[in-house]
Amino acid sequence: MDRALREAQAAAARGEVPVGAVVTDEAGTLLAAAGNEVEARCDPTAHAEILALREAAHRLGSPRLPGCTLTVTLEPCPMCAQAASFFRVKRIVFGAYDPKGGGVDHGARIFAAPSCHHVPEVIGGVRETDCAALLRGFFEARR
Amino acid sequence: MDRALREAQAAAARGEVPVGAVVTDEAGTLLAAAGNEVEARCDPTAHAEILALREAAHRLGSPRLPGCTLTVTLEPCPMCAQAASFFRVKRIVFGAYDPKGGGVDHGARIFAAPSCHHVPEVIGGVRETDCAALLRGFFEARR
Repeated sequence: MDRALREAQAAAARGEVPVGAVVTDEAGTLLAAAGNEVEARCDPTAHAEILALREAAHRLGSPRLPGCTLTVTLEPCPMCAQAASFFRVKRIVFGAYDPKGGGVDHGARIFAAPSCHHVPEVIGGVRETDCAALLRGFFEARR
Repeated sequence: MDRALREAQAAAARGEVPVGAVVTDEAGTLLAAAGNEVEARCDPTAHAEILALREAAHRLGSPRLPGCTLTVTLEPCPMCAQAASFFRVKRIVFGAYDPKGGGVDHGARIFAAPSCHHVPEVIGGVRETDCAALLRGFFEARR
């Protein structure tokens, strides 16, 4: 989560909503790291999770990432939760809960739908205070 | 939907699951067209909808596509439905219903979640028979 937080901080410095994500393999080796690039790419699908998952798949030369963990500073939205399922990650670890935009423990609750064919293990609230503070600080500064 | 069907046929010819999508603006002008590229890109997020939405945004130089219609041969999955919401499309027109993987009228029902901040108009079942036949033919040939 340390590295994901650094990616989130770097995203904030670029004027992006501060969310960072990393993908690690079963041995804990870092496969990919990314921060939000929605503004830079003019692409609302360029969430940190999607970028990190895609980079990890590219690195492994496989569209599936079994055994891998996606660690992200914010509860994934429905788009990213479904993407993580498609990439077949073993586990999702996230920091801050997102009652307004999250799609794991809130909203569409992607993994609770019976049509979700691959359900990763989910661990939420890891370093929640640090992750949430980063987001709160960013939005407060913008007001 | 004609053009989306042609994109789906082209995808099938490349060995991809035959789904095609187009984005048109309010005047009906074609902004983007794409077929599934999951296999070619080794990327399970490379669904026709995501590729077409991204291309349309790139063409307009804006991450938002108000007034635009996403037309796709298959009911969007939860990932693509959420992406369409993020891109702020006005309308989604789709062909075949997808009880197993769809996220609009089935499964996570993305637009029914109170946390979905932008809900497009949805018209499903347009040229359903043609769209479904293309998918059925593809999977039957693979068995």
